[in-house]
Amino acid sequence: MDRRSFLSSAAIGATASAIAAPAIAQEKPQITWRLASAFPNSLPALYGNSQELGKRVAEATDGAFQIQSFSAGEIVGGLQSADAAAAGTVEVAHFPTYYNWGKDPVWAIPTALPFGLSARGMNAWMRMGGGNDMFNEFLSDKGLIGFPGGNTGAQMGGWFRKEINTVDDLKGLKFRVGGFAGKVLERLGVVPQQLSGGDIYAALEKGTIDATEFVGPYDDQKLGFVKVAPYYYYPGWWEGGAMVHFLFNKPAYDALPEQYKSLLQTVCQSVNANMLETYDYENSKALRTLLAEGAQLRPFSQEILQACFETSKAVYAEISETNPTFKKMYDSMVAFEKEYYLWTQVAEYNYDTFMMVQQRQGAL
Amino acid sequence: MDRRSFLSSAAIGATASAIAAPAIAQEKPQITWRLASAFPNSLPALYGNSQELGKRVAEATDGAFQIQSFSAGEIVGGLQSADAAAAGTVEVAHFPTYYNWGKDPVWAIPTALPFGLSARGMNAWMRMGGGNDMFNEFLSDKGLIGFPGGNTGAQMGGWFRKEINTVDDLKGLKFRVGGFAGKVLERLGVVPQQLSGGDIYAALEKGTIDATEFVGPYDDQKLGFVKVAPYYYYPGWWEGGAMVHFLFNKPAYDALPEQYKSLLQTVCQSVNANMLETYDYENSKALRTLLAEGAQLRPFSQEILQACFETSKAVYAEISETNPTFKKMYDSMVAFEKEYYLWTQVAEYNYDTFMMVQQRQGAL
Repeated sequence: MDRRSFLSSAAIGATASAIAAPAIAQEKPQITWRLASAFPNSLPALYGNSQELGKRVAEATDGAFQIQSFSAGEIVGGLQSADAAAAGTVEVAHFPTYYNWGKDPVWAIPTALPFGLSARGMNAWMRMGGGNDMFNEFLSDKGLIGFPGGNTGAQMGGWFRKEINTVDDLKGLKFRVGGFAGKVLERLGVVPQQLSGGDIYAALEKGTIDATEFVGPYDDQKLGFVKVAPYYYYPGWWEGGAMVHFLFNKPAYDALPEQYKSLLQTVCQSVNANMLETYDYENSKALRTLLAEGAQLRPFSQEILQACFETSKAVYAEISETNPTFKKMYDSMVAFEKEYYLWTQVAEYNYDTFMMVQQRQGAL
Repeated sequence: MDRRSFLSSAAIGATASAIAAPAIAQEKPQITWRLASAFPNSLPALYGNSQELGKRVAEATDGAFQIQSFSAGEIVGGLQSADAAAAGTVEVAHFPTYYNWGKDPVWAIPTALPFGLSARGMNAWMRMGGGNDMFNEFLSDKGLIGFPGGNTGAQMGGWFRKEINTVDDLKGLKFRVGGFAGKVLERLGVVPQQLSGGDIYAALEKGTIDATEFVGPYDDQKLGFVKVAPYYYYPGWWEGGAMVHFLFNKPAYDALPEQYKSLLQTVCQSVNANMLETYDYENSKALRTLLAEGAQLRPFSQEILQACFETSKAVYAEISETNPTFKKMYDSMVAFEKEYYLWTQVAEYNYDTFMMVQQRQGAL
């Protein structure tokens, strides 16, 4: 059916609740949207979350509202999916907004900044602390509106061919790492490399690159890096709780009846939780597999973490001098970070610590 | 407009070939359910989550499906709300299932067992690891079906008039603590006390009791315990990630059209996340207030935690000998606990640790 005629009828029905609206009653409000995912379908926890969005929306509307997912490259390349939603080529993108950080560093904040919030902290700040509202202000002249749609939890720091212990060991390191983390690491001598997922293994094997970061055990295990770069570093301090957004074409979203807008927000929040549950479950299984395959777990040294932290802070201060939107969002996030990491170090951290000690002792 | 004619037409239009129950399609329109919360409306993070469920379901159905919340005592007492849903007095209960642990200890598992999973671990195990399916098997002959509907995160250990340092200090301690934790602490000499929320302050002030546990900073701050029992212990090892369930009267749930069943599950998962976000945000704010009011943070000593852990394990072993359903669910949870607390001590824990150190140093 013609979407416009449905929407105008719905608007009439909504404002005149006592008046019969036979046009709606007799015609099924069929909406069919397309979603461009930033992820390939070989990464089911990431790509599958957009399919889950479509499934839940369709079920809750008895099939009336369909959102069909396309994986990276099917309609547009993964990096272009937000642009495609803004242009109306598709109505939705499933997109880690930091892919756009080069356009404006504000885009990095809703996914993850180095030394930003953990997954729970991000959820709390984005939804309760006004973070997502600020992001939508930023998006308002870009033809988009977004809601959190997934989180990986804290990621790993990646796979290294050799051990690295000091800041000196970073100098000249050819590290496949993107975005903001690359900008920070560059100042410490790293040579960031850009490689698509399918090319990493061969480059690592040949030694064209020295290291690569990816996501965490569940995704990393599929790519077999353990065989050519067995030192598996943690934590991925640039992605302490990486969030993915559903970005909607704003005119299309604004034209929806109110009930569908509300439903979309509810479904987004449900699948936002779903991705973290999936990662928490699957990473727990996959880590054991990786250890059996020979992964050598290594923590980044305090020296390296401290240098990266201070460099990140310097970068934020520089950007804040010239970018008021970045400064506003960043300052809001840091204000909450200070409160959140005070609270969470009390009950949550001490509970976890005790349980981890029991786990190590085999007492669970 | 006539909603019934709209909905039945929509249902017929949707999947005409698949519709086998025209009676439902024609009767579907106006559903009004009542929900009995286990919580008073003075605890907005807990009680408010059931209102949020009703709001989201109503919005997504354009008002067709209404679920009205009643706080503890309005229809039935908070402890009776699950029974009321099973009997059909109400269609839904919002209920921490461990309130029923005295009927069968299986009821304790879906909320929290002492030294059980944290909030993220519970979400992963309940939804991905089969925990909630096992719970619903247990519920199947009790007229109920349930889905996770909130989590408080790790709770505090409560307010104490005097410091306690050793297991000896627990002997004779009159501690307002309920459920399974009381059973464990009793073996260590504690005298568990049952008091309703409104009576705790006066009893603490008079010294009729020595200590009380409640929830965490956000809820506790409202009750003013800091003035009469300033030692605020952590962690609440009996509630490392306390989950609350929505329990539906099973015949009422089974009679719903499939689209409403799916919608309810989606909304439950969304508000399950909502409660944790609310607590993570509000607790972060409230802890600072409590510290300004004179709260003295104290960790439970390793001696006390270790004794409580071992006693809990002994209790689980005893119950497992005679209760196969408990054994099955408990064993499943512990199997996941072992994997989860291995994985989470890698990236997540080290990231959090580094960030907490920065917080303490004022470097964030």
